[in-house]
Amino acid sequence: MPELRKDPIIDRWVIISTERGKRPVFFVEEAAPSKAGMCPLCAGNENMTPPEVYAIRRDLSPPNSPDWMLRVVPNKFPALRIEGALNKEGVGLYDRMNGVGAHEVVIETPHHSEMLSHMEVEDIENVFIACKERCLDLAKDKRFKYVMVFKNHGSIAGASLEHSHTQLIALPIVPRRVIEEIEGGLAYYRYKDRCIFCDIIAQEKEEGVRVVFENEHFIAVSPYASRFPFETWIMPKKHEACFVSRDKEDNFYSAAEALSVILKKYNKVLNSPPYNFMIHSAPFGNGEMHHYHWHIEIIPRLTKMAGFEWGTGFYINPTPPEEATEYLRETSI
Amino acid sequence: MPELRKDPIIDRWVIISTERGKRPVFFVEEAAPSKAGMCPLCAGNENMTPPEVYAIRRDLSPPNSPDWMLRVVPNKFPALRIEGALNKEGVGLYDRMNGVGAHEVVIETPHHSEMLSHMEVEDIENVFIACKERCLDLAKDKRFKYVMVFKNHGSIAGASLEHSHTQLIALPIVPRRVIEEIEGGLAYYRYKDRCIFCDIIAQEKEEGVRVVFENEHFIAVSPYASRFPFETWIMPKKHEACFVSRDKEDNFYSAAEALSVILKKYNKVLNSPPYNFMIHSAPFGNGEMHHYHWHIEIIPRLTKMAGFEWGTGFYINPTPPEEATEYLRETSI
Repeated sequence: MPELRKDPIIDRWVIISTERGKRPVFFVEEAAPSKAGMCPLCAGNENMTPPEVYAIRRDLSPPNSPDWMLRVVPNKFPALRIEGALNKEGVGLYDRMNGVGAHEVVIETPHHSEMLSHMEVEDIENVFIACKERCLDLAKDKRFKYVMVFKNHGSIAGASLEHSHTQLIALPIVPRRVIEEIEGGLAYYRYKDRCIFCDIIAQEKEEGVRVVFENEHFIAVSPYASRFPFETWIMPKKHEACFVSRDKEDNFYSAAEALSVILKKYNKVLNSPPYNFMIHSAPFGNGEMHHYHWHIEIIPRLTKMAGFEWGTGFYINPTPPEEATEYLRETSI
Repeated sequence: MPELRKDPIIDRWVIISTERGKRPVFFVEEAAPSKAGMCPLCAGNENMTPPEVYAIRRDLSPPNSPDWMLRVVPNKFPALRIEGALNKEGVGLYDRMNGVGAHEVVIETPHHSEMLSHMEVEDIENVFIACKERCLDLAKDKRFKYVMVFKNHGSIAGASLEHSHTQLIALPIVPRRVIEEIEGGLAYYRYKDRCIFCDIIAQEKEEGVRVVFENEHFIAVSPYASRFPFETWIMPKKHEACFVSRDKEDNFYSAAEALSVILKKYNKVLNSPPYNFMIHSAPFGNGEMHHYHWHIEIIPRLTKMAGFEWGTGFYINPTPPEEATEYLRETSI
């Protein structure tokens, strides 16, 4: 059973993923690259994954048969386990609980080599819809307090499978990073009576120098205090706290278009870089929160974390966001 | 001039290091490996670095001549600049200040290929002494509030030069990570009237399962909530808040010995991995702080940060610290 352990000095939880059992040799040897035919995420290999929990299928093809456009399956090597109770307990001055949670994989396409950046906007929209539906379903389990939706693209960005996929991890705790953002937003709201993200969007639209792309419902900016070169945030232009409460009218089409444009621009300017994206959202059941605003953070993985960053929480970014914006804006796709 | 910019949502500062001017092509091309003869940190190439600010020399050889054992020089491509005033200002809802600070390089050895892990304990002790002396000198500049001492070993760990070196960055702000640790220690102290690190050391000595090494004055443990496989913390056994207030009696000999043992064990168990270490210390002039305890955090760079970690601040560690301890303890060096 994996464990959740808390750093006693700062409120940082760590998943000790005991079942993966990594002996030192694991870190020394390079993992072999997966081959198209042997890939468990490819169409035709449905029996290589646990049974699907959600799918978008053509016509009425039965679950776990090959004729799908998108599938969501439990991760075969989950960081957390769905079974059991939390059993929170103290160990001397330390705190622990069982590693209860859910870890799912959204297989974005049946084709091994198709990348998210090359997919049709409607198919990218389907990825968001699948994530939303899975979040809503996972929210019914009262043990879970938060679902993190994220994507690792490329081995440098932590992807262990080549086949394009997004992941969801449901957690029994609201993560510290989310709490910090919500508390930061609340402090601003108490002072100004406005959402800080809405104010950021207004200032960015006025200044113009960090706006990379904009459509009817979403805006993509290089954040003023970008941690990484070419970091981009995609935000809904109207206030919206929670990713899952996205209104039906536009659904995720505009978000998908913005993501598609940014990824295509990255490919051209940065030579198809590895990247991560994370959906930052208010926790379940906080759709009406006035001081938080959901958004997608995308980070191309171009620089390395080093001792200074680990020790301070400071980041050193060699590319001013205004310059990154210019490069991205000028590139035609 | 580099800039310090603050994320308006959470108190995270970012150094926008404008002078390094990284165009996209920089991230796409691989850096060429440095060659021994051309290395600016090698003995004989003193004219390739800015003039030294500290050195340990044999006999009375003059500054910037070749006959040295250790040299400290300003970084030729500093993340922050020593000249100028902070000029704190607002830009709409954003906050910025000039990137004022100091960035120095401790050249640990005159020999290009000698690694810290292979150096004599006395020479490692000299690295700590040099860092301490530079911290004390930088502390005289009232613009600086904190000095971060860290080492990047290996390109994956962010080292851009092969020649073994440690770095110091003096900052005009106490970094967020340091504040969090101090606040965490204070909360515990208010409740228990004891230093949390002293209590951790007591519990670790009693339990025994995470103690990797111990000598008269220092103890090396795998932290209970290790973020990374084989993470190790080296702590002084007697309470001591600030790195620079280390008492003269033992000075840094025991710390250097503990570091040497851990690095040698890493080399054997993990095949000479890239690593970072960071000295976590109370800020200047807080030597008497009862609720903080300086220590060295060492992280071998074996796993990759991915979307889940960036989004949550959670870490997934595949190697339980008790297992890491066993591997390290059993290895003879």
